[in-house]
Order: sequence, then C-alpha cells, then structure tokens
Amino acid sequence: MRALGRHILAEAYDCDPAVLDDVNLVESIMVEAALAAGAEIRQVAFHKFAPQGVSGVVVISESHLTIHTWPELGYAAIDVFTCGDHVDPWDACHYIFEHLRAGRVAATETQRGILDEHDTPKLQPVALRRDAAG
Amino acid sequence: MRALGRHILAEAYDCDPAVLDDVNLVESIMVEAALAAGAEIRQVAFHKFAPQGVSGVVVISESHLTIHTWPELGYAAIDVFTCGDHVDPWDACHYIFEHLRAGRVAATETQRGILDEHDTPKLQPVALRRDAAG
Repeated sequence: MRALGRHILAEAYDCDPAVLDDVNLVESIMVEAALAAGAEIRQVAFHKFAPQGVSGVVVISESHLTIHTWPELGYAAIDVFTCGDHVDPWDACHYIFEHLRAGRVAATETQRGILDEHDTPKLQPVALRRDAAG
Repeated sequence: MRALGRHILAEAYDCDPAVLDDVNLVESIMVEAALAAGAEIRQVAFHKFAPQGVSGVVVISESHLTIHTWPELGYAAIDVFTCGDHVDPWDACHYIFEHLRAGRVAATETQRGILDEHDTPKLQPVALRRDAAG
C-alpha cells in the first residue's frame, strides 16, 4: 500500500484559554510547530473571531497545519497533514499540545492518497453527483 | 454526544490533471464551494508548486476547506471542516468533486470537538510530552 501523506486529527482539551484566544500567539505556535517538524512554510493565514476564538492555517510544502480554538471551552481542533518522509507530523503535534498547555489530548493518524484502489480501509466510496454538474 | 464540528476527509481520484495544476482555477473552485455551502469566507491562501501541484486553504467562519493536488496522479486530498448547523460540508465536497471532474471519490466524515470525554470512539488518547516542554 502506497500512501502520499499522513494526516493527524487531534483534539486538545483543557488548554489555557488565554493562549487559545491570542491570535498572535496561536499563529506563532503553529509556525514554530511546522518549523520544529522540519517543514517548509509557504503561506500563513490566521483570523481572530469576536468575541473569542482563533482559526488559522500554515500551508507548508508538505501539506498543512490548521487550528480552530474555542477558548470558552478550553478546546482546540488541530490538523497536521504531511507528505514525504522527512517530516514527522507528530513532532508538530506535540509542540502544539505543549504550548497550548493541553491537559488532555485525543488524536488519530489517517493515511491520505492511498493509490491502490483495493486498499482504502478507512474511507467510504461516495456517490458523485455528476447529474448536478454543469 | 455533543460535537462542535463535522470534518470530511475526501480522496478524489481520476481528476482532470489540467484543472488540478491550475492554481487560479483550484482557488476559484474552493472559494465557490465554500459559498455554495453557505459558508462565510475569512482568509484565502493558495500556492502553486513547481513543476506541478497546488495547495491551498479557505478559512471560513465555520472552520476551513483545504486541498492538495497531484496532477501527475490525477489525485487531490480535500478536507472540509464545518461547525454549526447552517452549513453542510457535503455540499462543498460535491461541488469540488464535480469541478475537479473526479472519476472516483472516497470520503469519510468525522466529528470534531466531542466534549463528553467518555464518548470519543474514533480518536485515541496520546501521551503528552510534558517532560520535553520548556
């Protein structure tokens, strides 16, 4: 089985609410996490919501990191998706968990871009609505 | 069980390589997909790789859409993550599948931000490397 990428979906609970609501700090953590994993940064886009919460993404040569925070719940949804062999997405995840001061984390790693069509254990085929296409 | 968001991970195979390698077109498809689902766009960041391939993200009020393309393989990795009840992430996905002219798609929907700690069926707890923190 050949997969192009590794995608970690992480749920970070009991984080520091002050960190989660600081857009500059969250952006810095995500950028530093990408660098800590050895990734090459291409684009950075972050947004602060009112009254609270941050969303942002770091596009890297190897794919992306994203985060969405709910300071009022102490929760952040984190994705780290990397392609190639020289970056370990868990390195970025652990950097993020530490700097959000997460008290509890749940995460899963999924393979992306499995090119053998007979070997896609985690994904379900879906209907293509070609009839609705122009 | 209360979940904050819905996250679709989609693998689109047998897409039109010319579409997958056109950064302006891919960006337009992703933006229009967000709008088709009723999402509110906050940030857009796309990057064209040499010799081929596109990566990009649309940050929306409801979370994000991302895409990474491999024109040489006819493959794209697509994520649509939405929070709240007024946006259906499948609407965005189907728009994208159609406009990439995907021949085959596999996808899965995962819940994000499950706030009952006893009910996280798909994610595994992971160790926090607090000892490595500063």
